[in-house]
Amino acid sequence: MNIPTLPDLTNPALAARLQHKLDHKTKPLASLGRLEALALQLGLILDTDTPQLTAPQLLVCAGDHGLAARGVSAYPSDVTWQMVQNFLSGGAAVSVLARQHGLALSVVDCGVRHDFAAQPGLLLHKVAPGTADSSAGLAMTAAQCHQAIANGVEIVNNLPGNAVLLGEMGIGNTSAASLILSGLADLPISTCTGAGTGLDAAGVARKVQVLQQVRQQHATVFANAPRQPLALLAAVGGFEIATLVGAILQAAAQRRVVVVDGFITTAAVLVAHALQPLVLQRCVFAHQSGEPGHALMLAHLSQNQAQALRPLLDLGLRLGEGSGAALAWPLLQSACAILAQMASFESAGVAAAL
Amino acid sequence: MNIPTLPDLTNPALAARLQHKLDHKTKPLASLGRLEALALQLGLILDTDTPQLTAPQLLVCAGDHGLAARGVSAYPSDVTWQMVQNFLSGGAAVSVLARQHGLALSVVDCGVRHDFAAQPGLLLHKVAPGTADSSAGLAMTAAQCHQAIANGVEIVNNLPGNAVLLGEMGIGNTSAASLILSGLADLPISTCTGAGTGLDAAGVARKVQVLQQVRQQHATVFANAPRQPLALLAAVGGFEIATLVGAILQAAAQRRVVVVDGFITTAAVLVAHALQPLVLQRCVFAHQSGEPGHALMLAHLSQNQAQALRPLLDLGLRLGEGSGAALAWPLLQSACAILAQMASFESAGVAAAL
Repeated sequence: MNIPTLPDLTNPALAARLQHKLDHKTKPLASLGRLEALALQLGLILDTDTPQLTAPQLLVCAGDHGLAARGVSAYPSDVTWQMVQNFLSGGAAVSVLARQHGLALSVVDCGVRHDFAAQPGLLLHKVAPGTADSSAGLAMTAAQCHQAIANGVEIVNNLPGNAVLLGEMGIGNTSAASLILSGLADLPISTCTGAGTGLDAAGVARKVQVLQQVRQQHATVFANAPRQPLALLAAVGGFEIATLVGAILQAAAQRRVVVVDGFITTAAVLVAHALQPLVLQRCVFAHQSGEPGHALMLAHLSQNQAQALRPLLDLGLRLGEGSGAALAWPLLQSACAILAQMASFESAGVAAAL
Repeated sequence: MNIPTLPDLTNPALAARLQHKLDHKTKPLASLGRLEALALQLGLILDTDTPQLTAPQLLVCAGDHGLAARGVSAYPSDVTWQMVQNFLSGGAAVSVLARQHGLALSVVDCGVRHDFAAQPGLLLHKVAPGTADSSAGLAMTAAQCHQAIANGVEIVNNLPGNAVLLGEMGIGNTSAASLILSGLADLPISTCTGAGTGLDAAGVARKVQVLQQVRQQHATVFANAPRQPLALLAAVGGFEIATLVGAILQAAAQRRVVVVDGFITTAAVLVAHALQPLVLQRCVFAHQSGEPGHALMLAHLSQNQAQALRPLLDLGLRLGEGSGAALAWPLLQSACAILAQMASFESAGVAAAL
């Protein structure tokens, strides 16, 4: 697999120019808090002191999981394709929020266990109709994993604009995300696993047991995961997460802003980061998921960062789909608007601090 | 002063209808987190299971403070009127954000130490050119305080729409807000006082000293504050806070949604709440201010509430103006859109949980 190397976006001169601009706007120093840090980041990604977000693309990657047959989710696998139809019909949360904010919504069949008719908004990149059961063997072959990543690269390459918002759908995919976290951050399964779409305590306990079986089944893969993240990804799935990995790497290579949704999308960032740590420079984390493993993912990614990564929103969302990314989107637009449109003390004739 | 009594918006039948609607949308139960609680609140305020926000009005109340002469702020008093001009010229943060979100922006001269020419977007309701120095006597007479409240009532009564977003401008007004918190929550000045627009540690220490003098000057007023909140308001000011109190009471009486900005606007809610506790049913707290007293205000208001009040955003903002209210606004629109536009499991043909 040929992973493109990412340029380092560190640019002290541009950062200083952006900071100077922010510091001379008509407001007390740093009084717009994390919105100012966001403006700085967007400027560095887009390589300008007047970042403008164009043609934002919300990409929802969908896939099914063989492990779902082991009872790790509160919902049946059929909900994956039914929700894909719901996304396309405009009735899902992400459809409503994308419409509200003028985000172009594309749904990708990365590996759903259903044959979709061609329809507007649906991108067909099915590697297989669902992954295999990772508790019995590899969820994906190495070739399937590479194909899904290549699909993500191609999809983003064909999208317009300079920002992608990433979400997902896949019954069983919190299990895959928990396994990826466990492998890449070397944490016990029990601390990485949560209720997903709404398991009760007994359901979570069963889920933990099944995921521990998966980890035992692939003990060597888990032991080597930080050095061989794609082997881990192939072992646990899923197709939508692998497609997201490709999408993240391609978007990062093209200096697009990557708006990361919740737990499962961040799992894809974990894999992309293990391949190319500099992807983090391009990632804006939209919200703190209610799924407890998400905070552990962000703590893992924050290692070696100057500041701990902190998502923009914290509303207890646990839906996925890209719904949190869409909800955070206006904050990115605000950060750009502040830089572009606010007056300086000088231009507005306002006195500076005493 | 004739304070209108507020009806109690508790409505178990409507609440149950709203909750049923939310629970049958195509998403796992409660997976939209606090956005669902917000949707429920907006439905109860607007008395419908399909709340729609119309003609939102952002009202920025401005006034000057005699206490500013005591060196409690990092900025000179002239910045108040200069920023009012900046709001109206479109160059301030709140101007930019109001434009982004289609919010009608009105700026109120509640008592600025400057003579403004009449101009579009400016409402002239000046009680006096700045309050008196509260460390030497009353900031406002009782009559001035009542006049400012009556102005707020009249202003909101003349505004269209069913939602008001409230912000403020006034050099020295974090001091007044800290004093109101200290009086109404019976907390020591030192825990209520912060850096405001950017004092250093020595500056904060001086500010604390001055505010302690104010508290001593009005010792009886502070002792009686919970029972006589308007006497406290008159003692410490300011005109913009009193006008906001009237705006909040009137908006609440008319069942408008009240979007509360940060520290100073919440101080006005504290006074309104001391007069009419049910105002809280109508208040949406937009963001957690970086000013430390704000969390104490919310804790005070959360007493006797079923759940602790928690603002929507936590971005370290400390600007005022209504900037945080404007940033949170799209979340209110999302909450309404979810209720109005999302499909149900039944209508979308999606299987329910196992």
